[in-house]
Amino acid sequence: MPVNPQRTLDELKELRALTGDEQGAQRVAFTDTWARARAWYREKLSELPVTVSQDAAGNLWATLKGESERELLIGGHLDSVPNGGWLDGCLNVLAGLAVLRRMAAAGTPPFTVRLVDWADEEGARFGRSLLGSSAVSGTLIPDEVRGLKDKDGVSLPEALAGHGIDLDRMLDAHAELKNAAAYLELHIEQGPVLESLDLPLGAVLGTFGVERHTITFHGQAAHSGSTPMDKRKDAFLAAGRMASEVYRVTDRHGGVSTIGSCKTRPGIVTSVVEECEITLDQRHLDLNTLTAMWHDAQDAAQRFAQEGQVSVKFADLWRIDPMPFHPELIELCDEAIVETVEVSHRLPSGPLHDAAEVARAGVPTVMLFVQSLYGISHNKIEDTREEHILASVEALDRLADKAMAWISGAQHSAVKSQPPQAQAAGDIQELRAEG
Amino acid sequence: MPVNPQRTLDELKELRALTGDEQGAQRVAFTDTWARARAWYREKLSELPVTVSQDAAGNLWATLKGESERELLIGGHLDSVPNGGWLDGCLNVLAGLAVLRRMAAAGTPPFTVRLVDWADEEGARFGRSLLGSSAVSGTLIPDEVRGLKDKDGVSLPEALAGHGIDLDRMLDAHAELKNAAAYLELHIEQGPVLESLDLPLGAVLGTFGVERHTITFHGQAAHSGSTPMDKRKDAFLAAGRMASEVYRVTDRHGGVSTIGSCKTRPGIVTSVVEECEITLDQRHLDLNTLTAMWHDAQDAAQRFAQEGQVSVKFADLWRIDPMPFHPELIELCDEAIVETVEVSHRLPSGPLHDAAEVARAGVPTVMLFVQSLYGISHNKIEDTREEHILASVEALDRLADKAMAWISGAQHSAVKSQPPQAQAAGDIQELRAEG
Repeated sequence: MPVNPQRTLDELKELRALTGDEQGAQRVAFTDTWARARAWYREKLSELPVTVSQDAAGNLWATLKGESERELLIGGHLDSVPNGGWLDGCLNVLAGLAVLRRMAAAGTPPFTVRLVDWADEEGARFGRSLLGSSAVSGTLIPDEVRGLKDKDGVSLPEALAGHGIDLDRMLDAHAELKNAAAYLELHIEQGPVLESLDLPLGAVLGTFGVERHTITFHGQAAHSGSTPMDKRKDAFLAAGRMASEVYRVTDRHGGVSTIGSCKTRPGIVTSVVEECEITLDQRHLDLNTLTAMWHDAQDAAQRFAQEGQVSVKFADLWRIDPMPFHPELIELCDEAIVETVEVSHRLPSGPLHDAAEVARAGVPTVMLFVQSLYGISHNKIEDTREEHILASVEALDRLADKAMAWISGAQHSAVKSQPPQAQAAGDIQELRAEG
Repeated sequence: MPVNPQRTLDELKELRALTGDEQGAQRVAFTDTWARARAWYREKLSELPVTVSQDAAGNLWATLKGESERELLIGGHLDSVPNGGWLDGCLNVLAGLAVLRRMAAAGTPPFTVRLVDWADEEGARFGRSLLGSSAVSGTLIPDEVRGLKDKDGVSLPEALAGHGIDLDRMLDAHAELKNAAAYLELHIEQGPVLESLDLPLGAVLGTFGVERHTITFHGQAAHSGSTPMDKRKDAFLAAGRMASEVYRVTDRHGGVSTIGSCKTRPGIVTSVVEECEITLDQRHLDLNTLTAMWHDAQDAAQRFAQEGQVSVKFADLWRIDPMPFHPELIELCDEAIVETVEVSHRLPSGPLHDAAEVARAGVPTVMLFVQSLYGISHNKIEDTREEHILASVEALDRLADKAMAWISGAQHSAVKSQPPQAQAAGDIQELRAEG
């Protein structure tokens, strides 16, 4: 019996009716609505010959025992942002459920297959995304999140406890990866690339690394009427010149750069701007290039500051290394897409995903993107054409078969061809070697 | 007996001690501190053979009767911004007092001399500057200011009533100009031009006209990670390009242009800017050039919007025509400066002054600027070197004598050489012709 994508579509609509309202999806992690989504999902799983367990980090695992203990993992997240879309995260889980169902109907698979529903991918309530997957990958530092509170003053540890999770034991979930041989994740693109190419599906090269900074220019407030142009120390002049410059930097290097915020002080119509703070978010798939992009932006800011007789300071907001996916799995993903919809396209992921955490832990990983309409997500108008949703389930199912075949024949070469960044997670590689 | 500038300096310090604190001058119009300054000033006047009267707009006039009813006016303002400087406004009044004193000591002058202390030049409490002088010039529209309230909720009419002023009778003060033949005002420059030229004094060409607008670019919010650069509709890109452009516009036309405020929405680090609003304040001494500057800025904004696939809207904030001063009085001002400190310099005034209102009413007008240290005013660190203050009183005194001679010989040619903008105030011209 082949995979049934129509049932996935029906289940997506069922989940939307159960956990959404006129403002969109409301499955914020560690809330009652999220728990209701999981209870509904557990009922679906109860029809299958799988064991279901929640790990120490709150991730929900459905395990279909195979002939080998080595595991193929498929993942997604039922949690959403408030007023979110009907597909982000839960398409991944329900498409995985369709694959699990198809495999279970065919008897015992050669390798164990596990479908994971990650806990709190969005970080919408406490501001820490990828919470459950980072516990599993081992990158979570409990003390860094212990003090987080939601807008009602509830602390993260309190919210976790309400769902049977002890912050200080979350890293125990690390053991869940000990037999992992590959990880697959389907996700809506959340960007405009596939739509602009008129393509339904794409193979994801990895997640961008991010350099995120503030750049603050400091000049001198001065009366807008009495200060000649050549006597000004205008912080906005330097900051404004950065607007075009970040486009030139990405012309040179690729990737993306965004000035998302600009604040002026005193910020009144009758004064030259004394201080101007902009935020700069730069992303690239290649670590060295990302570093070069940030250096180029700093050089330009320093040049504009000097030319405008203002000073400039840089402050770090956040950074993360790029996480390239596994080259052989990317190849297989391409094949699965071509077999399903004839044309594939390779693209990086700008947003982070749980898949990046799994890859960072050393598990060969790939993601499959399905087109987003208008490139919009985290909004009730987030949408994907139904025929594209159906095709995405089919392609994931094909990819799962290919990955299964790849695990059986390629476990040694897999480790060799891992990109360098992923090899750093040596402890996980060893755990897997033991399995 | 010559003018005594040292006494002016002493009186400035006396007034500072009486009406300032460690944060600066506190003579905000229609407050007790302002009233205390005026009471102190009235005591000074009481030693002179002058009549003192408050007009219907709250301006305080000291009149030294001359042989002719035709009048030489000298003006200034005792009111300050909160935490203001020790010179802005009151230097003008106290230097005028020194001139009046010198003239009174010399016997009856050929023309009547009147020293006016304008009420509420700064508009610091109710946001309407030049209140008293605009009532005298006739440009005040009572209904436009009737609803103004200070931060404690006190209305402007209430505050005025507390000082014997009826808003609806303020325009009666217009009659004060009926015999006016010339108006002189000394002021600190409030800008860096004279300091940068190392010159103590300058003759003012007039006050800049102002075009003040908001420019709002509207694009599309989009995820900073998932949106390729060539798919963006980035409102900040267009706004940022304006930063350099306004410098190019003033390179072409002269004058000054200031982007004082920039606001971004949603204004978060992870989104392309959907909407960006900047303020643009443009000033020039020539009306046609000012209009051309604003057109050039609009053209550029439209070009940047089109190139960046965003839209742009313009909104008016405020505008005022330039007010050139009287060419013959500028000449006399130059002469007075050269005789006092050897070198003069002609410069426009970026800030508005009561003198602009008097000129707008058709009275031949000129201002004399004295150097400001660091170009800073409206701040407790506002300062001018003592030797420059002394020189400014001397130069004003010389200018008063020259203006007196000019009135005696030049009352007809004066009207003929008035700049076109000032001639519009025909009713005042007629009133003067009657006088």
